Amino acid sequence: MPSLKLEKLRDTLRALKGLDRVNYTIPDVWNCFDYEGPLNINTPDHQIMVNPADFYASLIETVFLPRKNNAVDPGLSLSKARGETPKKGTLAGDWVKASVVYSTMIRASAAWDHDRSGILEDTNLNGLKETGTFVKMLAMLPLLEKMGVNTVYMLPISKFSLKDKKGDLGSPYGVSNFEELDPNLKDPLTGDAMTLDEEFQAFIEACHLLDMRVMIDIIPRTNAVENDLIKDHPDWFYWIKASEADQYAVPRVETVGTLGDPTLENMKKVYAAADVKRHLAMFQVDPRTQNPVLWQKVKRHKRIAEAIETHYDLRIAPAFSDYINDPQPPWTDITFFRMYLDHPQATRSFLEDPDNTPPYILNDTIKSNLYPGEKPNRALWETLADIVPSYQKRFGIDGARIDMGHALPPELIQMIFNKARAIDPDFAFIAEELQPQNAASARKTGYNMIIGNGFILIPRVFEGKAHEFYYEARHLDASVFTCGETHDTPRMAAREGGETLSRTTTLLNMFVPNGVPFINSAQEVFEKQPMNLGLDSSEADLHRLDNDDPYYGKLALFDRYQFHYTHPRRWDIPHMLEAIKPIRKRYMKELLNSERFVPIYDDNRLFVGFAFYKKTKQTTGNVLMILANLNPYHECRMHPWIRPVREASKNTETVEGRLLYSTHEPPRVFTQFLGADRIDLHLGAGEVKIVEF
Amino acid sequence: MPSLKLEKLRDTLRALKGLDRVNYTIPDVWNCFDYEGPLNINTPDHQIMVNPADFYASLIETVFLPRKNNAVDPGLSLSKARGETPKKGTLAGDWVKASVVYSTMIRASAAWDHDRSGILEDTNLNGLKETGTFVKMLAMLPLLEKMGVNTVYMLPISKFSLKDKKGDLGSPYGVSNFEELDPNLKDPLTGDAMTLDEEFQAFIEACHLLDMRVMIDIIPRTNAVENDLIKDHPDWFYWIKASEADQYAVPRVETVGTLGDPTLENMKKVYAAADVKRHLAMFQVDPRTQNPVLWQKVKRHKRIAEAIETHYDLRIAPAFSDYINDPQPPWTDITFFRMYLDHPQATRSFLEDPDNTPPYILNDTIKSNLYPGEKPNRALWETLADIVPSYQKRFGIDGARIDMGHALPPELIQMIFNKARAIDPDFAFIAEELQPQNAASARKTGYNMIIGNGFILIPRVFEGKAHEFYYEARHLDASVFTCGETHDTPRMAAREGGETLSRTTTLLNMFVPNGVPFINSAQEVFEKQPMNLGLDSSEADLHRLDNDDPYYGKLALFDRYQFHYTHPRRWDIPHMLEAIKPIRKRYMKELLNSERFVPIYDDNRLFVGFAFYKKTKQTTGNVLMILANLNPYHECRMHPWIRPVREASKNTETVEGRLLYSTHEPPRVFTQFLGADRIDLHLGAGEVKIVEF
Repeated sequence: MPSLKLEKLRDTLRALKGLDRVNYTIPDVWNCFDYEGPLNINTPDHQIMVNPADFYASLIETVFLPRKNNAVDPGLSLSKARGETPKKGTLAGDWVKASVVYSTMIRASAAWDHDRSGILEDTNLNGLKETGTFVKMLAMLPLLEKMGVNTVYMLPISKFSLKDKKGDLGSPYGVSNFEELDPNLKDPLTGDAMTLDEEFQAFIEACHLLDMRVMIDIIPRTNAVENDLIKDHPDWFYWIKASEADQYAVPRVETVGTLGDPTLENMKKVYAAADVKRHLAMFQVDPRTQNPVLWQKVKRHKRIAEAIETHYDLRIAPAFSDYINDPQPPWTDITFFRMYLDHPQATRSFLEDPDNTPPYILNDTIKSNLYPGEKPNRALWETLADIVPSYQKRFGIDGARIDMGHALPPELIQMIFNKARAIDPDFAFIAEELQPQNAASARKTGYNMIIGNGFILIPRVFEGKAHEFYYEARHLDASVFTCGETHDTPRMAAREGGETLSRTTTLLNMFVPNGVPFINSAQEVFEKQPMNLGLDSSEADLHRLDNDDPYYGKLALFDRYQFHYTHPRRWDIPHMLEAIKPIRKRYMKELLNSERFVPIYDDNRLFVGFAFYKKTKQTTGNVLMILANLNPYHECRMHPWIRPVREASKNTETVEGRLLYSTHEPPRVFTQFLGADRIDLHLGAGEVKIVEF
Repeated sequence: MPSLKLEKLRDTLRALKGLDRVNYTIPDVWNCFDYEGPLNINTPDHQIMVNPADFYASLIETVFLPRKNNAVDPGLSLSKARGETPKKGTLAGDWVKASVVYSTMIRASAAWDHDRSGILEDTNLNGLKETGTFVKMLAMLPLLEKMGVNTVYMLPISKFSLKDKKGDLGSPYGVSNFEELDPNLKDPLTGDAMTLDEEFQAFIEACHLLDMRVMIDIIPRTNAVENDLIKDHPDWFYWIKASEADQYAVPRVETVGTLGDPTLENMKKVYAAADVKRHLAMFQVDPRTQNPVLWQKVKRHKRIAEAIETHYDLRIAPAFSDYINDPQPPWTDITFFRMYLDHPQATRSFLEDPDNTPPYILNDTIKSNLYPGEKPNRALWETLADIVPSYQKRFGIDGARIDMGHALPPELIQMIFNKARAIDPDFAFIAEELQPQNAASARKTGYNMIIGNGFILIPRVFEGKAHEFYYEARHLDASVFTCGETHDTPRMAAREGGETLSRTTTLLNMFVPNGVPFINSAQEVFEKQPMNLGLDSSEADLHRLDNDDPYYGKLALFDRYQFHYTHPRRWDIPHMLEAIKPIRKRYMKELLNSERFVPIYDDNRLFVGFAFYKKTKQTTGNVLMILANLNPYHECRMHPWIRPVREASKNTETVEGRLLYSTHEPPRVFTQFLGADRIDLHLGAGEVKIVEF
């Protein structure tokens, strides 16, 4: 009996027959382990034709199993397996501050048109799946390891609703069952020999064997309008009449401006508005309360939402933005949970007849951190707080991001944290918090880090915002992600500066004090098409591909999508990140300690420079300088001040430096005469130089 | 029982099972018949994924079999099947003068990397052949028909020698057996159910059903150094010592310049040269004559050439150019036949000891039209004259090109013509004659047309040579091919003017008085890489593709090669030729009759204009003007003189014209005022306008 699911997967693949004549290709970046299969043909467009069973089995045998150590269980979180607990003075899960995070959406990241039909099929010519699966995602792990990634962050992998789905496939954010995995992630290669849960277990084992942690994305605030909790908990939801659903709209408040904050003062105006009264009048009592006897029949229906419409004329009310007068229409695929069983304490007096007003969605009820009721929905809170533990126990995950955690009741957040850290005392949480000013409170809440606004500022190089971000990040009270893009934003490679600037910032992001490098899926191959138009995007961002590209106008979050892994320059970023991996490792302590850091300033706002000082008695090899020219068009000369270097070296005349890495030239050693304690360095357009003294 | 081989092929394909999961693509230009198969997926790169058995069977059912007419046997030449004989005053085979010829090398024209592995395999992942076969070539015929092609001209299809082969696959010009077809042209799809001969028969039937004639290329002058005639006829060849073969070289004659003609005067100098004496001393008597008893044993050897080397130290002498001091090295893969059993009459006295000089290769012996002996090698001549009849009887071919016919004894040529035309009184012959001044004598010999030098002059647009060719062709005593390229030359699309000029001349070539349009394989898709560097080429022509192209540096004549059928503008030329097909048909009589033709002259040497006058009583629709601007960079204005048009229309003020076709704009009717009997026309860069008055 194999003890690991990875071994079971290998055995299952090895037992498969008849796949040696299947025409199956993978992008060559999926082969970072020098695969030596009997079928192993490089096609002219950077793909490799392989026998899929042999390829994935060889991958497991070559990359993962040799790292197996019988004393350590890769099925547990890394900290638990190693028996690590947080160091004194640090928070549980603070390992995340030293990590390099790769964000992946398995369905898209591991998608490939293996039969090259031009269509990304669920079942291709040979009965194989072309959208992503956990099994196929294994092939990306060696590439991630090459790039120094040590934390795999996954967009939601739970079962989601297909009702009124967006795009070809629907959004994984419309979760319909928190416990079950998205059945589309099951690989048909293993057939019935393995379950989807086992394949995810195998994936986690593989990550852990490579010393990579795994984080998932959980969404306790919203849920799909069609979901598995309705049956037993109709009272956890907001209801409107099905026959009036087409009139459901974001209420318009003339007395407040666009995107108004739900302050108490504003909420008074909201409740006074005529359109809000119209809106409130739409809400209904939940069906079970309306007719408990009928409910016993209706709840057994397979298509429960349809049955509720037929028998009660009720439908779950869609969610909408918590800003007052947000121009976005309602999000028809998702809804909010009722966090409290009564109306908000602070605003219920604004209601004309609170006792006879059914539960309703409004800017206050959905912002339950600011507007709590008196009766917490304990049963719901327990359910939500059990999601992470369930994934910890079944799969041994290492951390989680809490989607919209800041809109949840603080007690619920604490329940979630406490339950998770009771199981794994080193479990990490990331706050979906974009505002740097909220860093301190997030940290106080127990989050290890916040997302921050790097992806908004870093792309704005020419407005000086990137400069601002890079120099200010160290002052934040929590670590932030350093990234120019996320799954919600446009791609760096599609912005001004294009591939050049994408590469420049990807490297610079690895050395930002207080920053956690975050690589968005396919950023490493200069993917141009965003995955979603959620943040900082316009309609034009939908069309970043040539119009004869099979994925033109498609978004990975909703549609069948494969990344452009065969890009001609696909190895540039992986090779670059591989080269600087040992440098980052050597200076990790200094990167985490702001006292060892000195910024290098210049008039030029397109220049960013950092210096890190090691506390050693050696006279050389103790200062690292990162010098980045964010101008993708023009070269520049820099004259960093290096008195500490000169003083340490006790040589007043010259200084010797080592160019450890450059995006533009090979490493070399150089000696310079010093003038006014400054050296003279040339940086090409978009160049990053990493120099050690 | 199916009566046609095409029907047998269809039945064989229909009986195949298990091909519905095979990943097999074809270029979309192979589907000019709106294929509607169960598997029919357009890939993003202009290929179609099909079940090959269903695709080729549907092709036969949709395109060919509906044209079947039980009264006419498509297995016979078109003329025989229709009972056509040459018209009075014309030569047998003069149908070729009205034809549009497509030159194809089946191995390359029907090649495709069906499994897209990047390698053109003999047996791919699915056991299918990727180099060309007669069966696959069927898929090109609808494209040819669309372009108005009515004669398919095939480069050699006979079995060729693989000894010391050139390139990956060897040259089809190194024939080793005139009777047998090249076994590589057999399609494995039909397995043992059909023979190669049957597949070729099916191909010929398909051509004939589309009213296309088929011509082959025969090579009676040379043969592979390893061939099947050696066994029974060692005395038909020239021999040297195998142990001295590495010293075999083209003899150097200091007293004659480079590329000297083998005139009698020059031959005297040749025989006097020391290096020629060295050369002559190398030749040996044939092995059978040397030792007839041993020969009985040796001839039974499977690898006869090796056995002859072992037992006799003899090897067949390689051929070389018939020019004196040609810098080309010997052509080590082919040899010449001994056309006469004695030394040349005119030069034998130059030999020191004629009676004891074994047969030898020299500039005179290999130019047997100029230097006959007294003892014709009758048995060889009969063999050579029987080649064409054998193909006529077995396959019903319609004509042939004679390779290097002008170097053969005239009586042999007559034997070849007489035997072929005894079987088919309308059989056509094309002379491999490039010199226009030899047109009359070729015609007198019985050739229907010569190749001519269009492919040398037409590409030289900027030197005025294209102009010269187009205006002079009508004065030649035999029809010539109008073409800017052949399988031996660089491609028009790779010359100055590129795709623009290639399209311009391809259209103009359809309307040249006394010209026979000739389309080189893949010219229609702007193929850039030559098939051979035989004529008018330099080493640079070997590198016309991007260096990451899988066929970079490859030549179709020798290597595994597939044409670039998926070119983005692949439909431009086919659509253009399809559009002008009815125009050419309507003016066919005038095109063939120089009296109905008037050239349109202009100062501009990059302008070519022709007018054709119909003898009718109608006042309109009887004058066709072809106006071509061969300048690919600049537009021009033309003022063709049209007094005959004006006189015919009896209108002195205005003239009405119809733009029937333009490469640059849609058809339209226009009226112009006349000044000095001239109209005013604008031609865009590279534009051809076809106007009717």
